[in-house]
Amino acid sequence: MNKTTGAATATPSARVTPVVVHAGVAYVSGQLPRIAGELQVRGKVGAEVDLDTARLAARLCAEACIAALSDSVGEANIQRVIKLTGFVASAPGFNSQGAVIDAASDVFLERFGSLAGAHARSAVGVAELPHNAPVEVELIAIVQSV
Amino acid sequence: MNKTTGAATATPSARVTPVVVHAGVAYVSGQLPRIAGELQVRGKVGAEVDLDTARLAARLCAEACIAALSDSVGEANIQRVIKLTGFVASAPGFNSQGAVIDAASDVFLERFGSLAGAHARSAVGVAELPHNAPVEVELIAIVQSV
Amino acid sequence: MNKTTGAATATPSARVTPVVVHAGVAYVSGQLPRIAGELQVRGKVGAEVDLDTARLAARLCAEACIAALSDSVGEANIQRVIKLTGFVASAPGFNSQGAVIDAASDVFLERFGSLAGAHARSAVGVAELPHNAPVEVELIAIVQSV
Repeated sequence: MNKTTGAATATPSARVTPVVVHAGVAYVSGQLPRIAGELQVRGKVGAEVDLDTARLAARLCAEACIAALSDSVGEANIQRVIKLTGFVASAPGFNSQGAVIDAASDVFLERFGSLAGAHARSAVGVAELPHNAPVEVELIAIVQSV
Repeated sequence: MNKTTGAATATPSARVTPVVVHAGVAYVSGQLPRIAGELQVRGKVGAEVDLDTARLAARLCAEACIAALSDSVGEANIQRVIKLTGFVASAPGFNSQGAVIDAASDVFLERFGSLAGAHARSAVGVAELPHNAPVEVELIAIVQSV
Repeated sequence: MNKTTGAATATPSARVTPVVVHAGVAYVSGQLPRIAGELQVRGKVGAEVDLDTARLAARLCAEACIAALSDSVGEANIQRVIKLTGFVASAPGFNSQGAVIDAASDVFLERFGSLAGAHARSAVGVAELPHNAPVEVELIAIVQSV
């Protein structure tokens, strides 16, 4: 279950552009809970991964989204968060996807405030995620075109 | 399986903005089959929830999307439906996600007609949904900015 | 598992518009690995469907996205790919969703080049897909409004 897939296979695909901006709308690729490229948590939420750990993983995903945006357009040019989609790799019977993804939402609300950080959201429980990550978060944001 | 999660945990997260509008594009958060905030159906489609009940749940999700849009911008300002994503909590071997989400699509086509109601769509079968809901529908629509 | 659902039920829903364009942004409905409307592969990736076959299926999904866009606006009017979402029907323990969806990404990069074809992306492993398809790909692209 908690098999290690290795650093080589756990790096983001070279085919993926982290952020694509068109007409001031930034699409951020699905981010896994990585620090310096290394996946920090593996397993299904509700089985190997408990709720608190899943929430920490969701925070890392949100921070990875902000880091990707900052690398792409500069943090000062992030104007507002629009839509977050949170995918939670869920063990059978785990139905607290909302509580997991709340931790990602909190990062945006803390960082950008209750106006610019407020966002539409979907949270769903998927069967498996790349590299056995417990959470993946993708984002749409408004940026100052640069 | 069909465990009740309680009214308190079944209410939408306070972190989620139901609708965010930018440049006339409205992003509607994933909606569960609720009436007056209360989840109406629980369980996996193809197991505890049969196709007809799942289709009723999908209708409720679509109606919740329209209610959220109406609350946000006023129903008269909804100009056209663009994209619907339907997540169906699916028992193993259940592959009629399209038939379930057709019931959500029908709501938009009935309400807005075959031009303004026509939409792109994805329908997928997920492992689990928040509060053990059988269906979640999210939407992108065009609105008259207000 | 690999049950045939029949040609009638395997055709795309009449409720679904393949492509909806608003303000130059084209939303392409989730595409299954079909040729001339016929689903080419069925089953879960990591079980009945191996990685190579899943990658071929992902290519077919990407080609179906381009065909839908071409039918809608004309291939010459496709300006750039923005965001791809890849859903992989995954057997328990299959975590190479990225390797599957890389094959879809490659289609866009080959067809539109490394600038116009570059895209943000999410790849997730879902429980079930319509008609027991192994892969579904949806797309957002920029088109010359026609």
